[in-house]
Amino acid sequence: MAKDFYGELQLGILGGGQLGRMLIQEAINFNVNVHILDPDKNAPCRKLCNHFECGSLSDYDTVYNFGKNLDMITIEIEKVNVEALEALEEEGVIVYPQSRVIRLIQDKGLQKQFFKQNDIPTSAFQFISNAESLKTANLLIPYVQKLRKDGYDGKGVKMIRTEDDLPNAFTEPSIIEEIVDFEKEIAVIVARNDRGDIKTFPMVEMEFNPQANLVEFLISPSTYSFEIQQQAEELAKKIANDLQIVGLLAVEMFLTKSGEILVNELAPRPHNSGHQTIEGNITSQFAQHLRAIFNLPLGDTSAISNAVMINLLGEDGYEGLAKYQGVEEALAIDGVYIHLYGKKYTKPFRKMGHVCIVNPERELAISNARKVQEILKVIA
Amino acid sequence: MAKDFYGELQLGILGGGQLGRMLIQEAINFNVNVHILDPDKNAPCRKLCNHFECGSLSDYDTVYNFGKNLDMITIEIEKVNVEALEALEEEGVIVYPQSRVIRLIQDKGLQKQFFKQNDIPTSAFQFISNAESLKTANLLIPYVQKLRKDGYDGKGVKMIRTEDDLPNAFTEPSIIEEIVDFEKEIAVIVARNDRGDIKTFPMVEMEFNPQANLVEFLISPSTYSFEIQQQAEELAKKIANDLQIVGLLAVEMFLTKSGEILVNELAPRPHNSGHQTIEGNITSQFAQHLRAIFNLPLGDTSAISNAVMINLLGEDGYEGLAKYQGVEEALAIDGVYIHLYGKKYTKPFRKMGHVCIVNPERELAISNARKVQEILKVIA
Repeated sequence: MAKDFYGELQLGILGGGQLGRMLIQEAINFNVNVHILDPDKNAPCRKLCNHFECGSLSDYDTVYNFGKNLDMITIEIEKVNVEALEALEEEGVIVYPQSRVIRLIQDKGLQKQFFKQNDIPTSAFQFISNAESLKTANLLIPYVQKLRKDGYDGKGVKMIRTEDDLPNAFTEPSIIEEIVDFEKEIAVIVARNDRGDIKTFPMVEMEFNPQANLVEFLISPSTYSFEIQQQAEELAKKIANDLQIVGLLAVEMFLTKSGEILVNELAPRPHNSGHQTIEGNITSQFAQHLRAIFNLPLGDTSAISNAVMINLLGEDGYEGLAKYQGVEEALAIDGVYIHLYGKKYTKPFRKMGHVCIVNPERELAISNARKVQEILKVIA
Repeated sequence: MAKDFYGELQLGILGGGQLGRMLIQEAINFNVNVHILDPDKNAPCRKLCNHFECGSLSDYDTVYNFGKNLDMITIEIEKVNVEALEALEEEGVIVYPQSRVIRLIQDKGLQKQFFKQNDIPTSAFQFISNAESLKTANLLIPYVQKLRKDGYDGKGVKMIRTEDDLPNAFTEPSIIEEIVDFEKEIAVIVARNDRGDIKTFPMVEMEFNPQANLVEFLISPSTYSFEIQQQAEELAKKIANDLQIVGLLAVEMFLTKSGEILVNELAPRPHNSGHQTIEGNITSQFAQHLRAIFNLPLGDTSAISNAVMINLLGEDGYEGLAKYQGVEEALAIDGVYIHLYGKKYTKPFRKMGHVCIVNPERELAISNARKVQEILKVIA
């Protein structure tokens, strides 16, 4: 990087939520001046940056004006105005991940085509574009329907299991996918810098909350065979290279019952499946993202310990000013790290924080995590 | 603590330097609203808190007005107006460490008397109060002279080795101490919460920069015998208990050539001798300080790895806008974590940051630290 950036670099982050917040916790070590754009005036980052701007991430002018005097822009959410980022890139602002990568990943349809073009294993799919094509496509039930755009945290996904689910199907442009009979959802986070250095974090295993369709439980490192882990990590590297992305890329995958790995979807940024790296790995995903976008040598990603991450979701049935129950009892367990996201209001299943539970023994990490899940509640 | 503090607690920190900055990095996880008072409008914390106030830490009204609407106050520097803290305590503001502890520790003479009264081993000493008493005391050269108040980072300490040094002696109230023929300077950080839980971090070994009289090199954990480590840790616990302190207490000690441990001085706050805990221990000193003042269960202090901490001091001969040389090369070494303090201007020996070097092998951690010391420079 041409500029001696320490203390001078003006870094913009599109989005000021928990990912931005944890990115700032690391950016502090680099003396970076952080500018945040977020539509929520109470965003978790609002008091932790050099400059907070409240505004829409999808509006061209807002994003363009936010970025035009900055040196570099990164994201903590994909749903941003890409045209504005393209214009900024042309004017010399560094945008990592690159706008073309964000454009591709914003559209799950383009992601699927990219997988196909690059021989990346993924479940069989077809597109539908409206109510009409949904009818005429003669789809074989059961299937998964995913909106091509704007889905997040399980929103924008529907399981069509029987004819009865059909009235609920989306009529917007979407992907129809085969339901994968998977044994486990796995993820690998990979980082790539501008000179092409590339490094993966160890593969992790995820368990989802079926009600909220959010990662609820994550175990690192995985105990699947070396071959499977290596295959997943090589796949993540291949995708990062095929994309020529600069920054972090989270690759969510299915491990099928027959032992095959299918890529599900991508996120070009720090990701929920990497939160345990803060305590569980030598370098955290947030530090790694900064190293990657600043074109610095990538850090060692080895696991330090077994780590289980649980999301701290707003308790069902509570809405309003957040209160945290059981913090003291949870912290009395050794190896428990609570991260609250600074969100003033809770609602059912809102991500209010996460907890990382480390333990030299995997089974103890898991059982302590289950204890914390019982103890720690976000109510109102 | 009566108040459900997460998200509501208004925490004031007196001082907005690097210790406050690293405390904020941890406080983010607790949703705490941080208020900072610091005399420097460019203080490292200025952009990382809910409210930054520029003002004197020694002025009664400034400290009192800063604190009167807060729930809790802590410090990152001892040189603060204690009378204001006493008034705030009387009005119900929680002050941790307590004002009486700060008052005692502010005055190295009171510290020495406290050691004596509580059978805490320390070097022989006597007081002098002015030029007159310095003359009439008939002191045996060589000795160390320390100002009772306002010394920090080696300032306020003079070695009187020969008659020639006498004209430089302080004439302010000071302590005259025997020069200790020590083998090693060691330190233990101990935490105590309001219900009396107490926990030490493993003992560390320090090496000083003789020119700047600053900790330059710190090794954790120590390889001295279990007996010595235990004795140092028990001593730290005893002092914390004798003081009934709430919060963190750094205890700096000499290990003499005859194997005796003598307490040198105390700091009632996070301390330079605990920076390696961020990467090197399960719980960091900053997280532990917050746990202690919030009366939460104290965290596990075990070492994760061998860790060496080096201070990143402003290079001699450079003054002005800070530039960082060798960051890329240093980060190419595995296990190197750089923490920059966000100080705009450098001057000779100013603490501009620190680096923690971890390695499963102690000798490699040390040799990598020496490499980083060669590579990484703060110039202007």
